[in-house]
Amino acid sequence: MLRTVITTGARRASSFLAGQPCTKRPLALHFIGRTMASTNIPLSEDFFFRQLFDRESCTYTYLLADLKSKQAVLIDPVLELAERDANIINELGLTLTFAMNTHMHADHITGTGKLKTLIPGCKSLISKASGAQADVYVNDGEVVNFGRHELEVRATPGHTNGCITYVCKEQGMAFTGDTLLIRGCGRTDFQEGNPTTLYESVHTKIFSLPENFKLYPAHDYKGLTETTVGEEKKYNARLTKSLKEFVHIMDNLNLPYPKMIDKAVPANKVCGLQF
Amino acid sequence: MLRTVITTGARRASSFLAGQPCTKRPLALHFIGRTMASTNIPLSEDFFFRQLFDRESCTYTYLLADLKSKQAVLIDPVLELAERDANIINELGLTLTFAMNTHMHADHITGTGKLKTLIPGCKSLISKASGAQADVYVNDGEVVNFGRHELEVRATPGHTNGCITYVCKEQGMAFTGDTLLIRGCGRTDFQEGNPTTLYESVHTKIFSLPENFKLYPAHDYKGLTETTVGEEKKYNARLTKSLKEFVHIMDNLNLPYPKMIDKAVPANKVCGLQF
Repeated sequence: MLRTVITTGARRASSFLAGQPCTKRPLALHFIGRTMASTNIPLSEDFFFRQLFDRESCTYTYLLADLKSKQAVLIDPVLELAERDANIINELGLTLTFAMNTHMHADHITGTGKLKTLIPGCKSLISKASGAQADVYVNDGEVVNFGRHELEVRATPGHTNGCITYVCKEQGMAFTGDTLLIRGCGRTDFQEGNPTTLYESVHTKIFSLPENFKLYPAHDYKGLTETTVGEEKKYNARLTKSLKEFVHIMDNLNLPYPKMIDKAVPANKVCGLQF
Repeated sequence: MLRTVITTGARRASSFLAGQPCTKRPLALHFIGRTMASTNIPLSEDFFFRQLFDRESCTYTYLLADLKSKQAVLIDPVLELAERDANIINELGLTLTFAMNTHMHADHITGTGKLKTLIPGCKSLISKASGAQADVYVNDGEVVNFGRHELEVRATPGHTNGCITYVCKEQGMAFTGDTLLIRGCGRTDFQEGNPTTLYESVHTKIFSLPENFKLYPAHDYKGLTETTVGEEKKYNARLTKSLKEFVHIMDNLNLPYPKMIDKAVPANKVCGLQF
């Protein structure tokens, strides 16, 4: 077979900025291009990862598994999609060990309780500081195991008191909940939210990770699915500011009252099963 | 720091099927569990991959890049999100070589033309058999290069005459357009669609790939983001049937007239820039 290779010598994307006033930006972009996106951390051969999405609340749910033992964990499942999640776990022949949350959500009802009824043996898990009930409570510095793989729990309060980030160091990934969103962050005006606390959490517990660590948030509203530490340290519209500027931004967002909060929070105190 | 490890000896997810009549299904699941999801193909350290989503048309757009040369390709961009895509490419310091389509879409307008205006030097690319205009045409067996990485073009007609699947063999991934969707497939009642042709395309050009190859479709409507060859060979609701049954299913879907087709197809004949 004749092998035709299609290639081109296209100009760099920095020409995208053509016509803009000369600032430091193109230089910074070039630098970032060489450092930030220079090395992908490959997932292990025995590590399974799949992202799932709820179009209604724009919540991301994450399925992680050890492919040898088949033990799996599910991060931030959504009640209405628990059957979808249980079905895919079942089809893949995985054992769901933990249905876990990054925090007590206010914008959707968690699927952890329903998953426990669909997959007997599975346990719900949340931070002790969340104030929610669960089978297993975790605190800063503890480790959640599934097979030979593990997630380190990092307390990252600020959006809520009980927010945690799960870090999978070997795979170079972290699940940030609402503490850090792609180019943004969760609001801090409800559930004991505190912008100063959130800022400190992100800078000490997330931005301290290697720049090529991939970050997976609990939500995105623009169709973005993941980011990296390097990208957020450079491009996050809020967290790149000084603490003082950040607090000012967060205190003046003037967001509407969270439409699901009065239904979601009471339910999420008991794994989503109180209606 | 005291290292507390959270683990449990949960039962296998196969107990999810408890109470169902005994069929061959649990045995098959167990077999699949051990074979299908047994090995992840790690992405190379110099390979960049990011999935993007359009909540309106439920279209997935894929950004792939060679991290050394920074050359990138974008598969199936959406007109309304072209600026989002150009921005992320710019932020990452990548050079967009090709804005390419798996086929001439009927449910959304392609972003390839707009991306050419946002990122000078980028070329549009589509199959010759699509009948659409582009800077570069590809045919079955040809290869699209970006840096040292490559996508093999496989003609997979059936949804439309010009449908192609891009296969990245080294990374163990394929971009199937509407030819194969997660647990489903594209409709075959418009744009010279033909169920027999689609069935043959999937079985000879996609199901012939290794079972742990990841498959990325042009759409998903249930929040699923990816699948594998093994999963689809076992669980695809349509393609696991005989050809005769498949044709019967496809000929009796009774789907409504595609609401965007009269606007999208004429525009997509010219990279989305005819309104």
